[in-house]
Amino acid sequence: MANAKSSKRRPAVAIGNHALDLDIFSSSNGFSRLPFIQPHLAVFSQPVLNDFAALGQNVHGQVRRYIQQLFSRDTLWPELLKDNLELQDRCLLPLQEVENHLPMHIGDYTDFYAGRNHAYNVGALFRGPENALQPNYTHLPVGYHGRASSVVISGTPIRRPCGQILHDPAANPKKPSLTACKKLDIELELGAFVCKASKMGDPVSIGNAKESLFGVVLLNDWSARDIQAWEYVPLGPFTAKNFGTTISPWIVLTDALEPFLVQSMENSTELLPYLQEKQKNNVYNIELEVDLINSSGVSTTVTRTTSRNLLFSFPQMLTHHSIAGCPIQIGDLLGSGTISGAEDGSQGSLLEQCANGKTKIRLNGGEERIFLEDGDTVTITGVAGSMDVDMVGFGECTGTVLPAHEL
Amino acid sequence: MANAKSSKRRPAVAIGNHALDLDIFSSSNGFSRLPFIQPHLAVFSQPVLNDFAALGQNVHGQVRRYIQQLFSRDTLWPELLKDNLELQDRCLLPLQEVENHLPMHIGDYTDFYAGRNHAYNVGALFRGPENALQPNYTHLPVGYHGRASSVVISGTPIRRPCGQILHDPAANPKKPSLTACKKLDIELELGAFVCKASKMGDPVSIGNAKESLFGVVLLNDWSARDIQAWEYVPLGPFTAKNFGTTISPWIVLTDALEPFLVQSMENSTELLPYLQEKQKNNVYNIELEVDLINSSGVSTTVTRTTSRNLLFSFPQMLTHHSIAGCPIQIGDLLGSGTISGAEDGSQGSLLEQCANGKTKIRLNGGEERIFLEDGDTVTITGVAGSMDVDMVGFGECTGTVLPAHEL
Repeated sequence: MANAKSSKRRPAVAIGNHALDLDIFSSSNGFSRLPFIQPHLAVFSQPVLNDFAALGQNVHGQVRRYIQQLFSRDTLWPELLKDNLELQDRCLLPLQEVENHLPMHIGDYTDFYAGRNHAYNVGALFRGPENALQPNYTHLPVGYHGRASSVVISGTPIRRPCGQILHDPAANPKKPSLTACKKLDIELELGAFVCKASKMGDPVSIGNAKESLFGVVLLNDWSARDIQAWEYVPLGPFTAKNFGTTISPWIVLTDALEPFLVQSMENSTELLPYLQEKQKNNVYNIELEVDLINSSGVSTTVTRTTSRNLLFSFPQMLTHHSIAGCPIQIGDLLGSGTISGAEDGSQGSLLEQCANGKTKIRLNGGEERIFLEDGDTVTITGVAGSMDVDMVGFGECTGTVLPAHEL
Repeated sequence: MANAKSSKRRPAVAIGNHALDLDIFSSSNGFSRLPFIQPHLAVFSQPVLNDFAALGQNVHGQVRRYIQQLFSRDTLWPELLKDNLELQDRCLLPLQEVENHLPMHIGDYTDFYAGRNHAYNVGALFRGPENALQPNYTHLPVGYHGRASSVVISGTPIRRPCGQILHDPAANPKKPSLTACKKLDIELELGAFVCKASKMGDPVSIGNAKESLFGVVLLNDWSARDIQAWEYVPLGPFTAKNFGTTISPWIVLTDALEPFLVQSMENSTELLPYLQEKQKNNVYNIELEVDLINSSGVSTTVTRTTSRNLLFSFPQMLTHHSIAGCPIQIGDLLGSGTISGAEDGSQGSLLEQCANGKTKIRLNGGEERIFLEDGDTVTITGVAGSMDVDMVGFGECTGTVLPAHEL
């Protein structure tokens, strides 16, 4: 984050309606009761969390619990923060005054396709229900390399892309034109950041994959469906995906999400041993919601679903990613793939909701949508747990569509 | 580079059999006759060339010509280097004592598919000659995002990858197994580095694309054909490509390659205006050679071709890359796609040469090859021009295949 008091980018923790400025907190001896972190305090004055991530899950968890302790009613050390109004004034900033930045330096971004219902829905649209899933789909987490430079922080506007689009697929010869995308879509995903590197040629075993994951964010993989349809054969999506991918600003530590692990969707295929996890509960149960706010400010919840709709877990994605020897780096981002439920209103893309333009989505206030219009704002929110038990909220993942450049 | 005298990574220029250590040369007033570079001398003590690249093509060209001047017989300033044996001793290092490192920090790596003969040959193998090229192929430079972390410098060994492979494609249900790749291949390519950034949402126009290119390297995009065949539907190659991509260590400035621009292959499709270049000569005429050296040290030239076998130029690739708004960064690497000629012995991959295993390649000494065997070394070399006119040589792009890890 950065803010008016200091434009320096620095790490923070979101607590209620405030951000705890870890740079100020740390340099004001806030961590004095956590001896083992003393040699590493420099990580809290970095512009990104890569160095903190490198300290490992054990440290992440201890730092998290230490801060929780300081904010608890019966904290052991009230003098550190609870009774220290001067420090509170300096290190607790109202969230609305905080400017968010990318929390990690992202070396590489990879997008998977592990949402089985999404893969089925899209496959059924284009190839019919019998051939909806490709033969490889249940055997491995299908994925492709994304564009790291296009990952942006929540709030960054997304300009409607232009690209080569084939408006008359039946024509012969086929003649694309350069036009603004007419099928601008969202993809509701989770993203996971990596906190442990692997060497080229040395795959991350499934037993070691879990500890390689730093934390989770919400992710919107904006997609240009009409550009994608023309360009993606035979090497996959390219310009249809590299104009912007939005993530929520606050990384929720995997440590904090441990209580919300559940079994992934049932897979009738027996996985090869290299992908078999000992732990049955391997995917997160995060309630997810997509809201579309039109340019008049009227909001409609277009999607309600849960991240248990994933066929593969992040550890499985990471292990498969490296199976041929791909070197993994701290700060790498893995997208889960679009998360969709099976029923209406639970699909994580408009492509599915409107059956590629055949039906319309009714918005509150009377408007209809097929794909996104200029001025639309899309906001993803996520919560693990409920008010009854410990609840973990995610930061908002939001972006507004700007009109295309004139051609 | 780095070397025994100093393990510090620093930039250098290859001149004949020597490397000119730019860090020592610069800090010893080597650039004193080039006034405009004085405020920027720090670029020569960086471990990578990104900051130098950022100075722009005009500066690259002037620095190149300045160094050429100092090495010419009738140099204007013999006192700077020619007559300064003490400095020569410190800053001119025998190439064989130099350790090469990646010359740029690579934010993103993108691999194109612009070698028309290669696309045709591969398409014909899998879909027959009538459907060899996909309908989009002649309209745009097809490309996909690669894995930046897997780009390595020439000389780095490449471990044979393991992965999910479908050994019996006719079986139903299809059952892949985790095995070592049996179809390990090369891809003969050029790579181009970017020296000018663009903002998200602002495409690089074709008129501005050329000046965004820093220089060119040789590139071997090692490929696991059997892994690729199973995984690539529908989102493109993934683990079949992310276990290693080798580049030659010395970036040849686009400025130095300007005399070797020729017309690209004829394209019967009229390109959309955003891809039309004013300049007819837009691709490099670089003579390329692939040598396969078996574990006994016997070398066979398996490929001789030229980079004029590209249907699209690097400026066209860059412009298309950013057309939807993808932000481009200094240090981004663009692979051209496999370069193949039309005739036998000119194809840039073994897949083409052996018709996916149907024929064998005879090596000198009597051995045969279909795909690569453990211990094979593959070396790509490239030369622009000839001995008669100014000749520009590329550094070697080489790698040796290590056996797969035991499973």
